[in-house]
Amino acid sequence: MNPTIELLKKHRSIRKFTTEPISSELLDELFLAAQSAATSSFLQGTTIVRVKSPETRALLAESAGNQGYVNTAAEFLVMCADLKRAGNYCIENGFAFEGQYTEQFIIATVDVALLAQNLVIAAESEGLGICYIGGIRNDPQRVTELLDLPQGVYPVFGLCLGYPDQNPEIKPRLPLSVIIKDETYNERGNKEEVREYDKKIEEYYKQRMGGGHGISWSKQVSKLLGEKSRPHMKDYLIKQGFKFE
Amino acid sequence: MNPTIELLKKHRSIRKFTTEPISSELLDELFLAAQSAATSSFLQGTTIVRVKSPETRALLAESAGNQGYVNTAAEFLVMCADLKRAGNYCIENGFAFEGQYTEQFIIATVDVALLAQNLVIAAESEGLGICYIGGIRNDPQRVTELLDLPQGVYPVFGLCLGYPDQNPEIKPRLPLSVIIKDETYNERGNKEEVREYDKKIEEYYKQRMGGGHGISWSKQVSKLLGEKSRPHMKDYLIKQGFKFE
Repeated sequence: MNPTIELLKKHRSIRKFTTEPISSELLDELFLAAQSAATSSFLQGTTIVRVKSPETRALLAESAGNQGYVNTAAEFLVMCADLKRAGNYCIENGFAFEGQYTEQFIIATVDVALLAQNLVIAAESEGLGICYIGGIRNDPQRVTELLDLPQGVYPVFGLCLGYPDQNPEIKPRLPLSVIIKDETYNERGNKEEVREYDKKIEEYYKQRMGGGHGISWSKQVSKLLGEKSRPHMKDYLIKQGFKFE
Repeated sequence: MNPTIELLKKHRSIRKFTTEPISSELLDELFLAAQSAATSSFLQGTTIVRVKSPETRALLAESAGNQGYVNTAAEFLVMCADLKRAGNYCIENGFAFEGQYTEQFIIATVDVALLAQNLVIAAESEGLGICYIGGIRNDPQRVTELLDLPQGVYPVFGLCLGYPDQNPEIKPRLPLSVIIKDETYNERGNKEEVREYDKKIEEYYKQRMGGGHGISWSKQVSKLLGEKSRPHMKDYLIKQGFKFE
């Protein structure tokens, strides 16, 4: 396969970085590559807040569940879904700003994710490592205040970028037969395939943790979906102007 | 810059494809590259329904606003956010399935977008062209019935893949200074920058359409946000089990 596909297949999150900075020339290249991703209805609904201040970083790291690499990564970017920028022009152009429909929430959220993934791949193609920080949704109100996010803007996730100071293993994914289905959704074969996969993941964790218990994929995701999952998000988003109409 | 970054920067949607098929070996490579994208909390919340049936394709193309390339692309993939697969294991592992929080909706939607963007880049790296089809959200209930999507699964977007039979120009993006902000969100300079950018986009459309009126970016997005935007999405998603709690 070609080098780009090889690169994609080698992805793993990096949580330990060297102190080497990323040059501003390279960073601009990464941003341009990021921006080239598709954008729904040409909205371009992403704003990136680049946080350099160690004080703000420390508060964000704490909010994100004490993820220290938010402090130590060469760059920490807060990737925001932004309906405000476009919304500003509604009134100017004789439209009422109809409010934030669920659809518009989806459009802006997907826009951020596509752009971020381009940024990630551009970064990895230059030897950088990355880690997505969903933990900034632990306390989105605090992030909003720290970064002055106005109505119509919310932080979808953070992104750590830097030169890797570790070389973790690639985490195995579900078999293709479980996630790709022909013609219609069906769960044929999933149960058996996931059972085998669970063993593989237990083994992966045992090796990574140096012995001890491994936790299977199905147990991990059971916990994720079985527990109250950031139940503050809805009220936060409504307050922030995403009305889910 | 390196070839991967060059590739990213050359993206444009392709809406006309040759009849050349994509080999199943290549398709599997693309899927493996896609799957290697980061996944929040290891959920792996994506299911891809690969639609070959010309009858189903025709109905989906119609639903998507008569986008003919949904019929003619070598592959048409419906990219679904899937909480069901993981949810199945909640009860088995002694958890109650707490229902779909807004947070879980975000996690699954972002998962699909990251995976899809990897798929897109892998495809483009092999000379394929792609087009995201947000239009499948025009009538998500119909898509749900056609593809047998169960509760906890929704179609985020479609994806056309095939060998390009056109070579459209790259669409200029907003200036970096408008989308990248230091330390805090602010709109300094945006107004002037967007005014200049609007002229560029008007010119782009004039050239693409062979004369006539161009429409600026700010006018386009005003319309998008100023009009009722797929107002059925909320009720559809609630019915589909995404409760936005």
